[in-house]
Amino acid sequence: MQDCIFCKIVNKEIPSTIVYEDENVLAFNDINPVTPVHILVIPKKHIESLAEIKEEDEELIGKIHTTIKKIANQVGILDKGFRVIVNCGEDGGQEVKHLHFHILGGKKLGTKIA
Amino acid sequence: MQDCIFCKIVNKEIPSTIVYEDENVLAFNDINPVTPVHILVIPKKHIESLAEIKEEDEELIGKIHTTIKKIANQVGILDKGFRVIVNCGEDGGQEVKHLHFHILGGKKLGTKIA
Repeated sequence: MQDCIFCKIVNKEIPSTIVYEDENVLAFNDINPVTPVHILVIPKKHIESLAEIKEEDEELIGKIHTTIKKIANQVGILDKGFRVIVNCGEDGGQEVKHLHFHILGGKKLGTKIA
Repeated sequence: MQDCIFCKIVNKEIPSTIVYEDENVLAFNDINPVTPVHILVIPKKHIESLAEIKEEDEELIGKIHTTIKKIANQVGILDKGFRVIVNCGEDGGQEVKHLHFHILGGKKLGTKIA
């Protein structure tokens, strides 16, 4: 997608601090972190949001989750814990229209989620 | 798991307001909703948390996400948007040790996520 900032990050047209990369998935530090660890995990394929996923994307979404576990281990928060958030659409507060999973951690997040 | 409250909900030993059910996935209203729509989506199989998923669970996790989309449509929040949250472990604020995906919606959630 020509005007998608995350596609530009995938294509290395915009720099990012990459923490993980494979054929299908990219993870990089959020430029405006809200927690000590704040990583965005995205499919390299442009999918606008959770509302746009199809049955054919199930394998990719599953792989993203084992990758999230791998990344949490890599950055040292797997045992202490973390939170994963996906914002979808207007009410969900989605800011970039390319599906992304926030990994938040590095501090006690508490149980209040809204 | 004998002492798991969500396994008891799966087995109908504890009542819940079920919004979706199939062979592998169950979704029910959170008993302490923090938003107008607050649904928990769980695998029927006992998986303690995201930190415990294995490669063999990828298909299930993928299916849970297309199911989340289906449920969002069913309860009328697919177009307006919603947020999905998974708490993992101590720092993540996980309260029940059975993997669950919170669907939050029915109001504008804003962009603040921590």
